Amino acid sequence: MTVYFEDLDEGDVLEFGSYDVTEAEIVEFAERYDPQWFHTQPERAREESHFGDLAASGWHTASMAMRLVVDGHFSEAAALGALGIEKLRWPNPTVPGDSLSVRVEVLETRRSESDPSRGLVTLNHTVTNQDGEVKLEMRPTVMYECRNSE
Amino acid sequence: MTVYFEDLDEGDVLEFGSYDVTEAEIVEFAERYDPQWFHTQPERAREESHFGDLAASGWHTASMAMRLVVDGHFSEAAALGALGIEKLRWPNPTVPGDSLSVRVEVLETRRSESDPSRGLVTLNHTVTNQDGEVKLEMRPTVMYECRNSE
Repeated sequence: MTVYFEDLDEGDVLEFGSYDVTEAEIVEFAERYDPQWFHTQPERAREESHFGDLAASGWHTASMAMRLVVDGHFSEAAALGALGIEKLRWPNPTVPGDSLSVRVEVLETRRSESDPSRGLVTLNHTVTNQDGEVKLEMRPTVMYECRNSE
Repeated sequence: MTVYFEDLDEGDVLEFGSYDVTEAEIVEFAERYDPQWFHTQPERAREESHFGDLAASGWHTASMAMRLVVDGHFSEAAALGALGIEKLRWPNPTVPGDSLSVRVEVLETRRSESDPSRGLVTLNHTVTNQDGEVKLEMRPTVMYECRNSE
């Protein structure tokens, strides 16, 4: 069943998981897109980095969380993409052995004034590991199709 | 020569590029991290998507831009990672054939009050293609080591 704008209400909570993070994937992503040593050199990162371990690129953490939300929600939703994101934070580094899950809360819903066939939904995403440690938080605003245009 | 906190001043502008975007890379990234049809199915995207073409995942655009900034700046900077990002926007989709470049402007610099060996720098990143079309904008705050701690 497709999820339309009208199916999302303020206060709704959706939860998705989990994604197992490996050292190999952290290094592979970072070598391609974010080749800073604390993302690509496991031994040096464990010895010298202020993170204390090999840390995933922040974009990698965001991307792994996106995969969970796509599989659990966007794949069945009439979503048209994100307009933007506020307050993107990485309170703790994502490290090998983390198992990530995502909690999505609906903060605000409003129908588009310029196009009543679409609605805008502001969400709060919280990405945590198996111990509840927060790895990423952000507030995206996503456009959805409406089931009914009037 | 390593770039420290003291080397960055408000109003400084850095420019990096370019990164050539291919259909194959858009699909590869999206199949792994953001498998929505308008990112993974080129023909359907060109015919049915409101973007009018295959669109890169927003996280992919951010990651390609990150590679440019790492190669041009962070690889030679005493940077310790981003604390967070404000106002992340994707005004236009990144599509096959785009050649991306990044303009980084220093908006604000301030030494950490809790740890004078570190400084915080707020930047504005603007990612454009070869025609000057804006693909991504954001305001990250990045922590740098200071050359002098006092």
